[in-house]
Amino acid sequence: MSDLPKNVRIKEVGPREGFQFEKGAIPLEDKIALVDALSATGVTTIEFTSFVSPKWVPQMADADQMVAGITRAPGVAYEAIWLNEAGLERAAKYREVLQLRPTFSVAGSDTFMRKNTNRTVDERLEELPGWCARYQNLGMDWIDVGVMAAFGCNYEGDVSPKHVITAVQKLEQQANACGSRLGGISLADTMGWANPLHIKRLVGAVRERWPNNSIKLHLHDTRALAIANVLAGLEMGVDCYDSAVAGMGGCPFAAHKGAAGNVTTEDLVFLCQELGVETGIDLDRMIEAGQLAERVVGHPLPGKLKSGGNLATYRARAGTLAATA
Amino acid sequence: MSDLPKNVRIKEVGPREGFQFEKGAIPLEDKIALVDALSATGVTTIEFTSFVSPKWVPQMADADQMVAGITRAPGVAYEAIWLNEAGLERAAKYREVLQLRPTFSVAGSDTFMRKNTNRTVDERLEELPGWCARYQNLGMDWIDVGVMAAFGCNYEGDVSPKHVITAVQKLEQQANACGSRLGGISLADTMGWANPLHIKRLVGAVRERWPNNSIKLHLHDTRALAIANVLAGLEMGVDCYDSAVAGMGGCPFAAHKGAAGNVTTEDLVFLCQELGVETGIDLDRMIEAGQLAERVVGHPLPGKLKSGGNLATYRARAGTLAATA
Repeated sequence: MSDLPKNVRIKEVGPREGFQFEKGAIPLEDKIALVDALSATGVTTIEFTSFVSPKWVPQMADADQMVAGITRAPGVAYEAIWLNEAGLERAAKYREVLQLRPTFSVAGSDTFMRKNTNRTVDERLEELPGWCARYQNLGMDWIDVGVMAAFGCNYEGDVSPKHVITAVQKLEQQANACGSRLGGISLADTMGWANPLHIKRLVGAVRERWPNNSIKLHLHDTRALAIANVLAGLEMGVDCYDSAVAGMGGCPFAAHKGAAGNVTTEDLVFLCQELGVETGIDLDRMIEAGQLAERVVGHPLPGKLKSGGNLATYRARAGTLAATA
Repeated sequence: MSDLPKNVRIKEVGPREGFQFEKGAIPLEDKIALVDALSATGVTTIEFTSFVSPKWVPQMADADQMVAGITRAPGVAYEAIWLNEAGLERAAKYREVLQLRPTFSVAGSDTFMRKNTNRTVDERLEELPGWCARYQNLGMDWIDVGVMAAFGCNYEGDVSPKHVITAVQKLEQQANACGSRLGGISLADTMGWANPLHIKRLVGAVRERWPNNSIKLHLHDTRALAIANVLAGLEMGVDCYDSAVAGMGGCPFAAHKGAAGNVTTEDLVFLCQELGVETGIDLDRMIEAGQLAERVVGHPLPGKLKSGGNLATYRARAGTLAATA
């Protein structure tokens, strides 16, 4: 395990991924309380809302109130997402307080791309120049790219590393042609198809082709392998992960079709703690944020540490317990 | 990952670990139905009951009825556990239909050993000659040993590989002195202290000292790392695992409310399937058994595959879905 990174950067995506998934309306003040609790954990990036049409994602209709309501902590980047020009325009109004990132994603399969955007991957690529121009106008001369369903797709099956490499190459060529350079590369296991060997193969292939670009993993725990997939990523030196406090974004206890949350932030932080990998996150506070998340959504969430507890606490009091046992 | 074994043997311990943990009484016929469903999955060993005092574990008062009620499938070994001579005598009556295994366990810490048995580890070791004699009388000239809390203990903290090695050495010396040889070595992470690096260190140390004895891992998912710990075990060539269908169970003696079940059988089988490691288990049937387990206990259980589904099914129908999408 010699390639374990010394430090990893974790982007907390629970509020954005989690709240959009909830069926009932969550009160604005509860959402804000969770973001504020996360701000106190030491996590450096929180993706907390989406500037999307309330017609499609009613749970994100309060994006503007969220921006206004959260208490910004020093050293924390607050991010949001958008899917079209109107969304970016809404977000850009807040550029003093939001961290705008120039992102552009494609899917690992045409069918999933069409399901998401009504376009094939190649049609989607034709939109890249427009996005590069918009981001350049905002002072950003690079593009962070993402590949959704980079490991497999329920509609088209396994997605090969070669296929992903080709997609990222096209993204890079398009971006370069418009005067933008390739930034970070996010590989998303959107539908829970990844396994540790596949993680190593894809990360290895991407790393070989783009040795100087940051690789980020976005892993869903649909089939129980998210934390093992993180381990494989760490062993490959990957130092950027998305994760969701308490495992928000899915409920393992109900028959939501194919739905499971991201890898759980506090579980991921615990893994890193035990492996000696720094996250900069206070695990106890993240566990408390996980417990708060569960109260806010009002149903069980899958993360384990919020019931299992931080081993550091048990270590610290082990002697006392032994003496009184 | 070159040391991945070609095949692994999985011992299903859900009925034994799981039912003892349940607060309410589970009807006998439901317990039998679950064991029978497990018998149809291809799993080769099912630990399905305990011959223990109904005073301490009332949920196991029906052990005799369980033995009488289950339908024995060809090729499946049905195992039970016992904690004292009376328990072994009860089990031995059924030796035509039960697989008796000569097991003897100590804990990685004196405090946990006392909590379990009211003895220190050394006091417990003094009981080994009696057990060797009993097993020899039943025709078994070896002893399978187990170390509980082999990675850490809530009462005494981290447990070092050296400490475990010493315990197993004492077990071997005692056994040899009584004319029994050392059989398999089971390493149990009873309270969820293990991490993948620790797994590799301990397994490596045990393997170096006893290269020809089978090593088995018994992993609880208290802190989300069980499946990552299995991965570490597989990478070290470990080919024996205990697991519990649907993630049933928990350790009632583990001093905290967060005690969680064993690693989930169907999740473990899925990991193996994706890594190309044979289990001999029909994953779809194990998923169905997991769904049945959840209905039988009447509350949510943690396994993911029972909601996430077998990827093999998604692979098989991916083409069709793409064509009609």
